[in-house]
Amino acid sequence: MPVNAPHLRPARAVPGFRVGTASCGVKSLELKGKRQDVSLIVTDVPAQAAGVFTQNRFRAACVKLAETTITEHPSDIRAIIANSGNANAGTGELEQKWSEELIAAAANAAGVDSSRVLSASTGVIGTPFPIERIQDGMHEAAESLNENHWEAAAHAIRTTDTFAKWSSIKVGDYTITGISKGSGMIHPNMATMLAFVATDAPITAQQLQPMLRRVADRSFNCISVDGDTSTNDTLYLLSSGIGLGHAPLEDTTEFEEALTKVCIELAQLIVRDGEGVTKFVEINVTGAMNEADARTIGRSIAVSPLVKTAFAGSDANWGRILSAIGNAGVEIDTDKISLKADSVTMLESGNLHPDYKDDDGMTVFAKDEFSLHVDLGLGDASATVWTGDLTHEYIVINAEYRT
Amino acid sequence: MPVNAPHLRPARAVPGFRVGTASCGVKSLELKGKRQDVSLIVTDVPAQAAGVFTQNRFRAACVKLAETTITEHPSDIRAIIANSGNANAGTGELEQKWSEELIAAAANAAGVDSSRVLSASTGVIGTPFPIERIQDGMHEAAESLNENHWEAAAHAIRTTDTFAKWSSIKVGDYTITGISKGSGMIHPNMATMLAFVATDAPITAQQLQPMLRRVADRSFNCISVDGDTSTNDTLYLLSSGIGLGHAPLEDTTEFEEALTKVCIELAQLIVRDGEGVTKFVEINVTGAMNEADARTIGRSIAVSPLVKTAFAGSDANWGRILSAIGNAGVEIDTDKISLKADSVTMLESGNLHPDYKDDDGMTVFAKDEFSLHVDLGLGDASATVWTGDLTHEYIVINAEYRT
Repeated sequence: MPVNAPHLRPARAVPGFRVGTASCGVKSLELKGKRQDVSLIVTDVPAQAAGVFTQNRFRAACVKLAETTITEHPSDIRAIIANSGNANAGTGELEQKWSEELIAAAANAAGVDSSRVLSASTGVIGTPFPIERIQDGMHEAAESLNENHWEAAAHAIRTTDTFAKWSSIKVGDYTITGISKGSGMIHPNMATMLAFVATDAPITAQQLQPMLRRVADRSFNCISVDGDTSTNDTLYLLSSGIGLGHAPLEDTTEFEEALTKVCIELAQLIVRDGEGVTKFVEINVTGAMNEADARTIGRSIAVSPLVKTAFAGSDANWGRILSAIGNAGVEIDTDKISLKADSVTMLESGNLHPDYKDDDGMTVFAKDEFSLHVDLGLGDASATVWTGDLTHEYIVINAEYRT
Repeated sequence: MPVNAPHLRPARAVPGFRVGTASCGVKSLELKGKRQDVSLIVTDVPAQAAGVFTQNRFRAACVKLAETTITEHPSDIRAIIANSGNANAGTGELEQKWSEELIAAAANAAGVDSSRVLSASTGVIGTPFPIERIQDGMHEAAESLNENHWEAAAHAIRTTDTFAKWSSIKVGDYTITGISKGSGMIHPNMATMLAFVATDAPITAQQLQPMLRRVADRSFNCISVDGDTSTNDTLYLLSSGIGLGHAPLEDTTEFEEALTKVCIELAQLIVRDGEGVTKFVEINVTGAMNEADARTIGRSIAVSPLVKTAFAGSDANWGRILSAIGNAGVEIDTDKISLKADSVTMLESGNLHPDYKDDDGMTVFAKDEFSLHVDLGLGDASATVWTGDLTHEYIVINAEYRT
């Protein structure tokens, strides 16, 4: 059960984009016709594109191909094809061939050149990819192409996700709509995280690429660990604005803020839907020498199994939080660190707070949403990271994932 | 329940050492008289000493004090005092005072100078340390000092350990006896790991210190993650040989091999007693450019929650193993990697093995002990790492640790 999954505002259509889905039975033929598992996003005009990919050295063929495609045609991408049910990874030369066939099928269905198509696959690694099933169902995706099908696409990219995830806002005259999937929780990126964001704001690919990296660092990378990512993690951003004839934005500040908002919402939804998660915890790290240090410490707390099982047990065992801070690999001064959970202070400048009572800590840790505040006492930089707890249910889901 | 806990050979007495224990009710006064929780190891002669400590930046006062003590008096250490039930960590200035009082009490009971005493504490972090209870019980430990009490000391340093851990062998005319505790399993070092090894082999502290680092890298650090260690992790090695008047060994090769054997046994016992563990998995990494790379890749597999839940579910989901290899942060060539589980080959030189059948993989993963073999195809270096699975029981133990 997700933790306080919000009622999502409708996903707005984005001028220049159409979306279709199909049910191909990728994971199992028994699911064909019962569960949508293929999403096709097509642009009516050449789209400016940017991508952020997994840091895993085992990168799936779809990731390698997409990086090349974006590098070669950053201002002329025409479609994204995505499937759930099989990651098409870990099989070497075979996965390369299957990825190319997937892209070719999508290009054919969308009526665009295959050199302009990005793909993304999520699901089990190391299992032969049922390319024929997707080829057979591609016409279904093409026939359902419609500017209002973003929510259907969000449903179709799910694996163990219990709800579909999207976020959509207006920024000036333009729209940003994104969808995401992912629900692995200890190291979220090890379960594939996919996110596709579309906008009609007129911004060049040259501006979009560095912007998307900055935004990913403050959103998706705040629920995950750098370098500890799945073979298939992908974030795509496509913009139709210039293709639609709009003059490029001169000031992209407001757009970047809106994009950050969308990506933070998409990322938080992944945490709320974390496998077996019953708590949603925000970790604020302040007083750092720089933002990267703050984020590294936040993540070290966020991924610690001992911290996460303490959350699950509603046990204010904050010594484990100190241990995670000390393990982050960041220079700290233990005599300057302060720690609070909501408004309850445990540690002040490295010493046990004289008024701290375990019962007060326990009251906070018993809540289904709370915040930790770590002040390093060293500088002015800060970062925020979001995580959940580690429960029995996580084990059940992951021990039986393929059955 | 531990995985195939072996019947341990008796712990041999080591000339020059006497060991005593006491029941002080450190964790709870209700346990006083019921469970031993303090161990005192005393040398009759000045001992040569070496120590390997936690990499955590939050280092407990006992660790800081011990490092100073060994640095100042490497050839004249006289006692180790250890307690379970409270880590005496995370309370700042208070823990420093309590550690000094613990050392003073032990020195007084053993009749040695407090500047020659090492301490080690394990248990809950961030809780006030009940120093008076230990002071009250110290005479009990002193009165029970006896050269045959190693097994009792192994019992007294346990926290969530389900059995006491020791290893003891002869090397030539000399004896090596060690005890250990620890049972955290995802990141084993985050639950405190303690090990104390005693020998009468005549070796100088100057030789022992670098040797102990090498040995730790091939034993305790093969069940753990560098830099992801608890506030209190400690490995002490004391040698009485020179104090007893033996001439220093000229060739320490044979001794180092024996010491490695003892430490590997102590480390493997910790894995077999991992919290909630039902499987014992050996991970052999070969074909690496150097030993450090091989160990890093082995550890990345060994700590991956997704790999460990697959073990728990007897699910040969080996794509997760590839993902963990790719996340290790080590340069690899994915086209050269081969993977086997026992004698079943999944991947050969980066490609799915044509004869691999999922049923064969499942048969191996269903066993309670098996080996993974990863060949990187790059060089001649190798390393071996040991791990267990991640089960529901781990969550229960850690969510309720303090209750």
